[in-house]
Amino acid sequence: MEALNKLAELSYALDTFYFLMSGALVMWMAAGFAMLEAGLVRAKNTTEILTKNIALFAIACIMYMLCGYNIMYPGEAVNSVWPGISFLLGEDNSVEAVLGSKGETYYSKMSDFFFQVVFVATAMSIVSGAVAERMKLWAFLVFAVVMTGFIYPLQGYWKWGGGFLDELGFLDFAGSGVVHLCGATAAVAGVMLLGARKGKYGENGEIHPIPGCNMPLATLGTFILWLGWFGFNGGSELKLSDVGEANAVAMVFVNTNAAAAGGVVAALLTAQMMFGKADLSMTLNGALAGLVAITAEPLTPTPLVATLIGAVGGGLVVLSIVTIDKLKLDDPVGATSVHGVVGIWGLLAVCISNPDATLKAQLIGIVSIAGFVFIASFITWYLIKLIMGVRVSEEDEYQGVDYSECGMEAYPEFTDSSKG
Amino acid sequence: MEALNKLAELSYALDTFYFLMSGALVMWMAAGFAMLEAGLVRAKNTTEILTKNIALFAIACIMYMLCGYNIMYPGEAVNSVWPGISFLLGEDNSVEAVLGSKGETYYSKMSDFFFQVVFVATAMSIVSGAVAERMKLWAFLVFAVVMTGFIYPLQGYWKWGGGFLDELGFLDFAGSGVVHLCGATAAVAGVMLLGARKGKYGENGEIHPIPGCNMPLATLGTFILWLGWFGFNGGSELKLSDVGEANAVAMVFVNTNAAAAGGVVAALLTAQMMFGKADLSMTLNGALAGLVAITAEPLTPTPLVATLIGAVGGGLVVLSIVTIDKLKLDDPVGATSVHGVVGIWGLLAVCISNPDATLKAQLIGIVSIAGFVFIASFITWYLIKLIMGVRVSEEDEYQGVDYSECGMEAYPEFTDSSKG
Amino acid sequence: MEALNKLAELSYALDTFYFLMSGALVMWMAAGFAMLEAGLVRAKNTTEILTKNIALFAIACIMYMLCGYNIMYPGEAVNSVWPGISFLLGEDNSVEAVLGSKGETYYSKMSDFFFQVVFVATAMSIVSGAVAERMKLWAFLVFAVVMTGFIYPLQGYWKWGGGFLDELGFLDFAGSGVVHLCGATAAVAGVMLLGARKGKYGENGEIHPIPGCNMPLATLGTFILWLGWFGFNGGSELKLSDVGEANAVAMVFVNTNAAAAGGVVAALLTAQMMFGKADLSMTLNGALAGLVAITAEPLTPTPLVATLIGAVGGGLVVLSIVTIDKLKLDDPVGATSVHGVVGIWGLLAVCISNPDATLKAQLIGIVSIAGFVFIASFITWYLIKLIMGVRVSEEDEYQGVDYSECGMEAYPEFTDSSKG
Repeated sequence: MEALNKLAELSYALDTFYFLMSGALVMWMAAGFAMLEAGLVRAKNTTEILTKNIALFAIACIMYMLCGYNIMYPGEAVNSVWPGISFLLGEDNSVEAVLGSKGETYYSKMSDFFFQVVFVATAMSIVSGAVAERMKLWAFLVFAVVMTGFIYPLQGYWKWGGGFLDELGFLDFAGSGVVHLCGATAAVAGVMLLGARKGKYGENGEIHPIPGCNMPLATLGTFILWLGWFGFNGGSELKLSDVGEANAVAMVFVNTNAAAAGGVVAALLTAQMMFGKADLSMTLNGALAGLVAITAEPLTPTPLVATLIGAVGGGLVVLSIVTIDKLKLDDPVGATSVHGVVGIWGLLAVCISNPDATLKAQLIGIVSIAGFVFIASFITWYLIKLIMGVRVSEEDEYQGVDYSECGMEAYPEFTDSSKG
Repeated sequence: MEALNKLAELSYALDTFYFLMSGALVMWMAAGFAMLEAGLVRAKNTTEILTKNIALFAIACIMYMLCGYNIMYPGEAVNSVWPGISFLLGEDNSVEAVLGSKGETYYSKMSDFFFQVVFVATAMSIVSGAVAERMKLWAFLVFAVVMTGFIYPLQGYWKWGGGFLDELGFLDFAGSGVVHLCGATAAVAGVMLLGARKGKYGENGEIHPIPGCNMPLATLGTFILWLGWFGFNGGSELKLSDVGEANAVAMVFVNTNAAAAGGVVAALLTAQMMFGKADLSMTLNGALAGLVAITAEPLTPTPLVATLIGAVGGGLVVLSIVTIDKLKLDDPVGATSVHGVVGIWGLLAVCISNPDATLKAQLIGIVSIAGFVFIASFITWYLIKLIMGVRVSEEDEYQGVDYSECGMEAYPEFTDSSKG
Repeated sequence: MEALNKLAELSYALDTFYFLMSGALVMWMAAGFAMLEAGLVRAKNTTEILTKNIALFAIACIMYMLCGYNIMYPGEAVNSVWPGISFLLGEDNSVEAVLGSKGETYYSKMSDFFFQVVFVATAMSIVSGAVAERMKLWAFLVFAVVMTGFIYPLQGYWKWGGGFLDELGFLDFAGSGVVHLCGATAAVAGVMLLGARKGKYGENGEIHPIPGCNMPLATLGTFILWLGWFGFNGGSELKLSDVGEANAVAMVFVNTNAAAAGGVVAALLTAQMMFGKADLSMTLNGALAGLVAITAEPLTPTPLVATLIGAVGGGLVVLSIVTIDKLKLDDPVGATSVHGVVGIWGLLAVCISNPDATLKAQLIGIVSIAGFVFIASFITWYLIKLIMGVRVSEEDEYQGVDYSECGMEAYPEFTDSSKG
């Protein structure tokens, strides 16, 4: 008996540690988005996008603590009248409760909160890139408050909190829908109200590419995201401490990696065929597309199938970026394609390897998430536009939002400010 | 019995692994400081600050192995006449000793050394930024030898080695005092002897801002430090392997993250109100200030209180940076404010949530650490100044220390050397 | 009995998790190589080297899954007619098999695959830097297919798969030979067929240094590799879950860190003495040399001996880089010296601390690996040269391979394209 109790405690410690390490890896994705986006915008808009990225992460942490977690997991919140998460380490996690739970309470709820909170930030980071180079900083941050405190948690509840999508049999292992499609949809709503960057689309319908200013940063960001995704998907198994669970976590790591690899190769080949060049930014988006594609189901495919699911994502993202540009939806970093279009592909691809999935449930999930998030985001963006405006002045945009919003250049010695 | 023994072994393995992963995260902070500082100096002084950062890490590892660890934890050192740490995996960590210790020896002492050694490097990294852009490289490295081999370990012994501060009831969970205040104080002593950068303060008392050359690097450094801090604070619980300890580690992760978030938001708002712009460098320092503030006690506050402790740190750091600049203490990266002023706030804030803390013990700790480190550092810097000089020539400073100290530009193709 | 079974399961989970975390750290080394190499080439060749790095990682993952793993560990492959690794989570890893194996099956085989696959990518990354700035992208990627699918696995089998080198008593803990020497030898073969960069060696035998364009990136890459090496060496103990193994893993962490520190200090001092300046790129290579040197045996030395083994590597790498340059083997990042020359030193240094090592076996291992890899790589490079050519045109080289291969500048706003 003493041995069994000690075992239960040790097992609890291991699962908690696994959650915390996974969460730390997902937190690291915030740096990945910051570097990716900073690399893909122009030098004159770099300080602002960095400020947005660190500020949105902080806002997400605070709002999710204050109310988001309680909205998303209301079963827990009955402990708490005023929002906040301090109840999470109450008596439910005492030694007695853990030992008496017969294995049901198998990790610290505080570690679960840590893991969940960094997911919210990921969803919000997706928005940041799409609206880059012309949005007012504070308008963006106000949106971040609403998105991380209310919009994300509400649709998150539908699936992960045990809501109607969960009951319907909608499957989304680590959030191709709940996180990626959600973030991309909020971004689309913002981009539609915001309009394209000046000079992006010519009067005669021509599209002017606006190259990113720092490709090593964009590549670093992609590698950071790739690494962080092992926490994102690997931690979403939620348990590690027996043979079956350990095997599952290992499988998720292998498949996540395989899908990213497939995405890279497919995007590289697609770009080479379409443009005649090995386009690095498409290749980076291919890696991310592979990762998004496998996120809805990284456990049941074989590694070969995972590679192929990622490869379809990698090919798709190239086509999608080109198409969305033709639709004049100006998304400087391709976030809509990577997280939205490929997120949908990932949700559909669950049906390939998971016999529990139904196409119907997946479609209902996609429509519900995208529909709700679009409407809620559009209304939010619209109100922000009414109250404080969302777009900087034409002159500020020309000069760069770094100066107007942050009062500081990102690379004062590398660029000639007269270049504009 | 067999089961209990195996359990003790497995538990030992988990705690050791937790220590090693935490240590690896803290080691990663060395990269964070290097990137942060490289981003905040001018291009012409970048190679040198990178060289300083990697060299000081190496020196810290060697000196702490040779003598620092034995000074800080002398209880262990009785095993060893000649310094060095090889005894750490002697019979004390044999299977028999572990099983016979009834839980007292619960992790590999070598993993403890690994965790401790990366802390020393952190303290030393703090100094590096404050003296940037005008100090001789080798003068700095000689100081690093003394600091990591003697000054840091001696005051570290007072608290963590069981010395008088520990007996007095001074509380410092992960080192707001032992690490951050210590590093900042050594930096102040250096800055005072070194003087300000040429051109920083005008003849009529005006202050000329000298902007950093690469804000994405500074942002990356901040994110790296944020990530590494989960190891820094999370590992300082020192044990993980039962329900109570696992809950504690999870709480530390959540609070560490919450304080950083609070610091970001507070610094951003303070800067916006004071300067009318969303100042990125202040925001980054706000994140770090939040982290420093919670380091002295990341376990007992609720997450909401942790957010507020971090937020006070974030507001404080903006005011402190402005004030220290007025005092003409030229600290290019704000290390004195982030680690010194906010370190003191963190030590005092222990009293808010931890009933075992007394204001008196905290004040004695602050005065003892700051007083001793200041005097010891000042003497060391002074002797170095006498023997080899601490400051580069005016011409070398004008041209950049990269050329004079390292013979190599950091960005030979991005800057026009005639820009100066 | 129930307790013992649960213990076995928990132990399996911990060892699997340890493998997965180690593998994630090694995967992160891919980012390290990308940043290191991008920092050490000129701006006009940066996009291409980034593309190479992410593409080679993806190719390595796919090829090793399709056939490499089965070649390297054929004992496992009997389960599988068609290559692929899906069998790895078959009945061998069921709960029954694990419990019945009496401790022999102690981690998920999928986690072992994950750990192994990131090693392959490391070996291939070494090649990428040496052939930088003048090789055709697709020629390189075709070589990557052959190297990661066949050449690496075959020689890897000799030691780690239980082949003749293992039987001979050749010792190579984590791959100074199997990974680093292998990668460096393949690089040398490529460099010989490829020739030097235009302008590197003058007509009168003079050597023109070509400085890297972004030293903070190179430093970041070095820190990333340093961090990743804890997974590389630490994970190569292969087991963690009892007192002896946990002590061993901790020792490996400490020694890995100590050797890197020794390498930094030795290279810094050597460079200061030879060139009169604290050469940063040599210092970075010193860190890597220390790491390569200890990789063949990070367990048996004391930390002091490990520091010295690393220091010899750090001194050696400076001399080697200078010498190889005199031989007109143009290796822009010094990969041949760091991974080849120092890899050999590491293999010989096993004899210092490990009584099981014999100089004869180590020499046979060195000759076998280097000999086979050189011949196989040379033939492969030669066939690629015949079929598609390996070198870009003189004009493309002058303009930068970024434009000819990728159609995209890495830093369009920082460099003046007229600078060339």
